Amino acid sequence: MNLAENVCNIVLFGGLGDLAQRKLFPALYQLDCADLLSSDTVIYGIARDTSLKQAIDLTEQNLRNFISESEFSENKLKVFLEKIHFLSFDFNDHTAYSQLSSELDRDIEAERLFYFSTPASIYGAICKGLDYGKCLNASSRVVLEKPIGHSLESSLDINQEVAKYFDESQIYRIDHYLGKETVQNLIALRFANNLFGSQWNQNFISYIEITIAEKVGIEGRWGYFDKYGQLRDMLQNHLLQLLCLVAMDPPSELSSDAIRNEKVKVLKALRPITEEMLDSHLVHGQYVDGYIDGKPVPGYLEEKGANTQSSTETFIALKAEVENWRWAGVPFYLRTGKRMPEKLTQITVHFRQQPHYIFDPEQRALAENALMIKVQPDEGISLQVLSKEQGLNSGMKLRKAPLHLSFSDAFSMDRVPDAYERLLLEAIKANQNLFVRSDEIEHAWKWCDQIISHLENRVTPMPYPAGCWGPETIYKMIEADNRRWHEQS
Amino acid sequence: MNLAENVCNIVLFGGLGDLAQRKLFPALYQLDCADLLSSDTVIYGIARDTSLKQAIDLTEQNLRNFISESEFSENKLKVFLEKIHFLSFDFNDHTAYSQLSSELDRDIEAERLFYFSTPASIYGAICKGLDYGKCLNASSRVVLEKPIGHSLESSLDINQEVAKYFDESQIYRIDHYLGKETVQNLIALRFANNLFGSQWNQNFISYIEITIAEKVGIEGRWGYFDKYGQLRDMLQNHLLQLLCLVAMDPPSELSSDAIRNEKVKVLKALRPITEEMLDSHLVHGQYVDGYIDGKPVPGYLEEKGANTQSSTETFIALKAEVENWRWAGVPFYLRTGKRMPEKLTQITVHFRQQPHYIFDPEQRALAENALMIKVQPDEGISLQVLSKEQGLNSGMKLRKAPLHLSFSDAFSMDRVPDAYERLLLEAIKANQNLFVRSDEIEHAWKWCDQIISHLENRVTPMPYPAGCWGPETIYKMIEADNRRWHEQS
Repeated sequence: MNLAENVCNIVLFGGLGDLAQRKLFPALYQLDCADLLSSDTVIYGIARDTSLKQAIDLTEQNLRNFISESEFSENKLKVFLEKIHFLSFDFNDHTAYSQLSSELDRDIEAERLFYFSTPASIYGAICKGLDYGKCLNASSRVVLEKPIGHSLESSLDINQEVAKYFDESQIYRIDHYLGKETVQNLIALRFANNLFGSQWNQNFISYIEITIAEKVGIEGRWGYFDKYGQLRDMLQNHLLQLLCLVAMDPPSELSSDAIRNEKVKVLKALRPITEEMLDSHLVHGQYVDGYIDGKPVPGYLEEKGANTQSSTETFIALKAEVENWRWAGVPFYLRTGKRMPEKLTQITVHFRQQPHYIFDPEQRALAENALMIKVQPDEGISLQVLSKEQGLNSGMKLRKAPLHLSFSDAFSMDRVPDAYERLLLEAIKANQNLFVRSDEIEHAWKWCDQIISHLENRVTPMPYPAGCWGPETIYKMIEADNRRWHEQS
Repeated sequence: MNLAENVCNIVLFGGLGDLAQRKLFPALYQLDCADLLSSDTVIYGIARDTSLKQAIDLTEQNLRNFISESEFSENKLKVFLEKIHFLSFDFNDHTAYSQLSSELDRDIEAERLFYFSTPASIYGAICKGLDYGKCLNASSRVVLEKPIGHSLESSLDINQEVAKYFDESQIYRIDHYLGKETVQNLIALRFANNLFGSQWNQNFISYIEITIAEKVGIEGRWGYFDKYGQLRDMLQNHLLQLLCLVAMDPPSELSSDAIRNEKVKVLKALRPITEEMLDSHLVHGQYVDGYIDGKPVPGYLEEKGANTQSSTETFIALKAEVENWRWAGVPFYLRTGKRMPEKLTQITVHFRQQPHYIFDPEQRALAENALMIKVQPDEGISLQVLSKEQGLNSGMKLRKAPLHLSFSDAFSMDRVPDAYERLLLEAIKANQNLFVRSDEIEHAWKWCDQIISHLENRVTPMPYPAGCWGPETIYKMIEADNRRWHEQS
């Protein structure tokens, strides 16, 4: 398929919103620069209450801000801006969709990609409008931004609403973690490397850690965040997606459904967390004032706009268990929180120690191999091996030594493409691999909803000072299993 | 054991020889600088026909030449030179040994390390003299330089001669490859890393390559080398030692004999190479004129001092098979030669491909993990993994990406210690781990002698131009097994 010949027009709802302006237009600019958009492509930005002049001016200004200097070219910007047409209408005004329809009908051959960068609560209304205005045809696809609901029930509602107008094969649900190079590389790492592939099970792996740590606090979104909390905001989607990719059985082929079938199997195999398990399997926390990079920062309840009675968690750690043949007995320690010491998304696969040990007994605890897959900030993988310590006086002393591969180094690329570039490109190419199927979302919510219901019965989250890796009890939890979090080793 | 308190006097036969002057004295200087020699240590240099003044002056001059500037200190040199005493006598003059004896008796408590840096043909005579002069006691140890014979028979003669005066536990046979950091690191790599340890067998490994490539030609030693040839000079000792360390079963402890027992088991399991196997299992070659680094160099028969009728091999490649449970069906491709394109000693462990393949069929041949253990020139290990190719337009294209560990980088050392520093230190500490036991030498010769006898029946070695990896037939040999030498991938 020669992409440059495959015209796919893009309709961006929420075209002046934060995501569209910061991420989507810059990503489309990059695709255009890389000749991955056909020259005939039209990008329709849909926004309410704006003049078209204002809209395009704002977009231009933001492109100038968000495209890095080395990528920027006046010429390319000019070419790109000519592809953008704004339309101003109210999402609920069904008659307005006819205007969009007649625009789209100018190129009746072109495929149509609708991107809903709006709150999920109006996905249904937009779908209805598109249908009413006859904007939809067999080539139409829709991209849905997260969060899709805040519970199993609300996500089912939204999915059912959209499903009235789009077949599952036309729906592209975004989890932007799936667009990150390292996350996609998990597929290559696991299934093209027999060295890892043959050991990817309970015979060889001791435990797996997945950490999504944010350094930032609430960033002015207190009211929004407080309704969700860290579990809904980060664990239910990003963290469980990473878990699925790490834990899934090998798909027999690389098709979207083969991969997603395996991911769903993982979610279905997650051991439900019962109320009795809470003490041993769960820690939830809320940050209090502390220090980030040596500077004092306020606690969650002291942030601007805070309701000082909130018991919303800003941190959650879980011991998850995947009850199947591959992973029986291998705990997955999951953790995500705000106001951690650093921004870090990392999967750490801890391999079992060797059965017999012949080196200095005091170094026994060292002797563990680990594969570290860093998703951000610096994408790369490293493998921790034990090596003989160098030097004349060291005898057979062991030492941890990382074998390291940083993607931007290894491939001498100027830049690692942003997740949204990849995701937009895949949606344009009609490839669903990197998008989330409805049953994935449902099973993820099923598991999370149960946990949420327990949390609501619990008194309050454990306080933890800003700038640490979570409440102290996370160490008790993992040490009870004779294991350690990555930062402890 | 506090080394600085353990006096071990060293008697260096061949004290003005090339090895002593280039390697042994500089290595002892380094040990002294690192406080690994007791301050009371005396180093006796034994040489024939020299004045003591001449001997010490020459030694000082060579130390100044061979110690790198960053390691050199006038003060330390002065301290070190005071430890050296030369004695001049003829090895065959038994009465002269009494003089050495009375020197050694000055410190009756000190241990005694005799280092024979002379041709093996006079090891017996020196032993006899030491015994006659009453130089030997229970603490005495002897270090024997290679080559120990040029055949099974001659090595047995030498070993038996020395065994009359020294117990096996007192004999330290040098193979300086065993002193190299990376070679010792093989032990740590294999037995402290379960990721590798659990895969180190025919279930997971496809084949193993060991290459010792020299870039140099004959370097003025034509007469000496022509009597031995590459098989005796490099394969029988260094290459088979590397093979033993790679292939041995895990010793149950790190003791010298536990390790050496396992090494001997490998040598005994080597499948004998019969005359019928020669065509499929062996390539021997002799370099003709060619180019090294773009400069013309003469062929072996055109070197200074050459006998133009010589059929001595300067290159040998073998497909070796270790007939045991661990390695059945895993060929070891061994190769060593002179006038290769680069100086390189490397062990490459090729892991099996995964059983099922889901990526681009055209890339299937890529999908192989390999562990590369580089012994020289830059010691380090790297692991070849398959990674997703980066970039927007690459889809799920695979790419080989090395995870690399260079020892001098990883441990931020100024220098990697020379093999002789390590070996002298181990001999001083009475640790035989890194030395070769008599039965290792015997079994290595047993296997090699048979090959040599076939070669003698063969017409001539295959010519190969200087600057390539050996005669073209080495590719036929390995490709017949559907495998490839490292430089082909």
